[in-house]
Amino acid sequence: MKLTALLIAIEVGGTVAFAMSGLIEAMRKRMDVVGVFSVAFVAAFGGGTVRDLLLDRRPLFWVEHEAYLWLVFAMVITAPWWLKAVLKDAGVRLMEWADAFGLGLFAISGTSIAVAAGMSPGVSVLMGTTTAIVGGVARDVLCNEVPKVYQDHRPYALCAVAGSLAYIGLVVVLGLGSELASLAGIAVATGSRLLAVAFDWQLPGWRLPQK
Amino acid sequence: MKLTALLIAIEVGGTVAFAMSGLIEAMRKRMDVVGVFSVAFVAAFGGGTVRDLLLDRRPLFWVEHEAYLWLVFAMVITAPWWLKAVLKDAGVRLMEWADAFGLGLFAISGTSIAVAAGMSPGVSVLMGTTTAIVGGVARDVLCNEVPKVYQDHRPYALCAVAGSLAYIGLVVVLGLGSELASLAGIAVATGSRLLAVAFDWQLPGWRLPQK
Amino acid sequence: MKLTALLIAIEVGGTVAFAMSGLIEAMRKRMDVVGVFSVAFVAAFGGGTVRDLLLDRRPLFWVEHEAYLWLVFAMVITAPWWLKAVLKDAGVRLMEWADAFGLGLFAISGTSIAVAAGMSPGVSVLMGTTTAIVGGVARDVLCNEVPKVYQDHRPYALCAVAGSLAYIGLVVVLGLGSELASLAGIAVATGSRLLAVAFDWQLPGWRLPQK
Repeated sequence: MKLTALLIAIEVGGTVAFAMSGLIEAMRKRMDVVGVFSVAFVAAFGGGTVRDLLLDRRPLFWVEHEAYLWLVFAMVITAPWWLKAVLKDAGVRLMEWADAFGLGLFAISGTSIAVAAGMSPGVSVLMGTTTAIVGGVARDVLCNEVPKVYQDHRPYALCAVAGSLAYIGLVVVLGLGSELASLAGIAVATGSRLLAVAFDWQLPGWRLPQK
Repeated sequence: MKLTALLIAIEVGGTVAFAMSGLIEAMRKRMDVVGVFSVAFVAAFGGGTVRDLLLDRRPLFWVEHEAYLWLVFAMVITAPWWLKAVLKDAGVRLMEWADAFGLGLFAISGTSIAVAAGMSPGVSVLMGTTTAIVGGVARDVLCNEVPKVYQDHRPYALCAVAGSLAYIGLVVVLGLGSELASLAGIAVATGSRLLAVAFDWQLPGWRLPQK
Repeated sequence: MKLTALLIAIEVGGTVAFAMSGLIEAMRKRMDVVGVFSVAFVAAFGGGTVRDLLLDRRPLFWVEHEAYLWLVFAMVITAPWWLKAVLKDAGVRLMEWADAFGLGLFAISGTSIAVAAGMSPGVSVLMGTTTAIVGGVARDVLCNEVPKVYQDHRPYALCAVAGSLAYIGLVVVLGLGSELASLAGIAVATGSRLLAVAFDWQLPGWRLPQK
């Protein structure tokens, strides 16, 4: 029971962090209120929606848990009052943390739902990573940018992969229960992301060879 | 019966208007015939397709009513003969009207289908608005532009929201029949859009606060 | 049996060619390893995934044939070792051939699956063409470019349409078996594309009329 409450708290934090990234990006592009809402919703719910579509899962998670829709709605509506505070240094740090938790949670939710639907380990890792990054990719496509997660050069999707692999190793190989394995997977994904940000780890760029 | 005929007439007008917006946008980008067809189809059918995918509805509406496919096909093929006339002033006005009717009709079709599928009022409004705007958003993404509907600053999606709310109020709260409520909802969405265009209403921009 | 083996060989070639186009495009944009993987996967599997979603077909083809996922994975991982060779003149020619085979095969796989699912000829041609081009379109959208297939001006999607029409003519009108018709359809699509490239055929551009 306590574990479930913890998972919900993490999911709320992740959803808020992802929605906020959409909100800020849309404002940078000087979008109107419709754009800000749309991009915030897509950033927060895009990954999970694509996961549910690919796995043919209904009701969609935001239909089942409509409270998340209203949470993001309330967040966007009230943004003028709190956004300034969030954009200060402490706020940026807070957002990085929330985003890392969102990454971990969405990766593991995608992986565990795919495993429960009978998908193979390889497909499950792909579903987890997709759930974690598609929201951000769609946010950047709507803002007419190359997706940041593709050019960041600091590990982000790879942290999701690591967490998904940890989850699958614990559940499929070691036979651990799903809740404990979820916490471990989130710890791996979120923890490695926080380390990557703290120590500014860099992925190698892949250059096209010169003829 | 007469109401249904009216709804079909509006749907034809809306589909034509949305397809035409795709056609013109693709030509502006100097696309070839394949691009013009693709963008016109996506603009006309994108919103309804996403609605059907999210609600897991088959057959897709353009599979069920294949005539719409052929209508857009014929429209694009014959564009060189009529496009010049449409781009004159009277034509531009005509397109704004057709687009406003398309907006209203697609919003209400999305909302009413969602209500019939047992969705909550909040989700139904979201489905209606999604149906109304996704075609235009996808059109602009394919043309490598920030979606116009996000930066227009004249109410567009908000008119869809208003029409959806009117429909839901009449059906769910007042128990009105679906056809009459549809007409009322379309009247609200289309009417408010026409007023917004006529009087050049502006939405407030949301600026990022300066640190 | 021999025909099936031939079809599988063509599918492997097409998947590799499409993945390679994503890989190269992502590298041109200086994406990191995550971007390169994502764009290669989307280019290779995007068309078939959209086809399966639209037709409500599960398991998705890359869940059913997971070997394709690992093939592309291995290809991307090993790219630094073979990419230089591929980018030389002979390699570019080889890629054009593989791409033309991919075009033909994906078009016919989309068409034949749609026919088998009871779709009308018109919808089946649309599904075939969608399967063939959506991977490339999504690849270019992720790279923040106008889709090349929309501006190429050399026939590409039209070759897919021609192959789809040939398949449908042979199966629906003449009652030929699906395997022979598939080979004929692929021959039409791939052959016309190779001719278009060899002789540099040009589609007319569609210009907006001047007022």
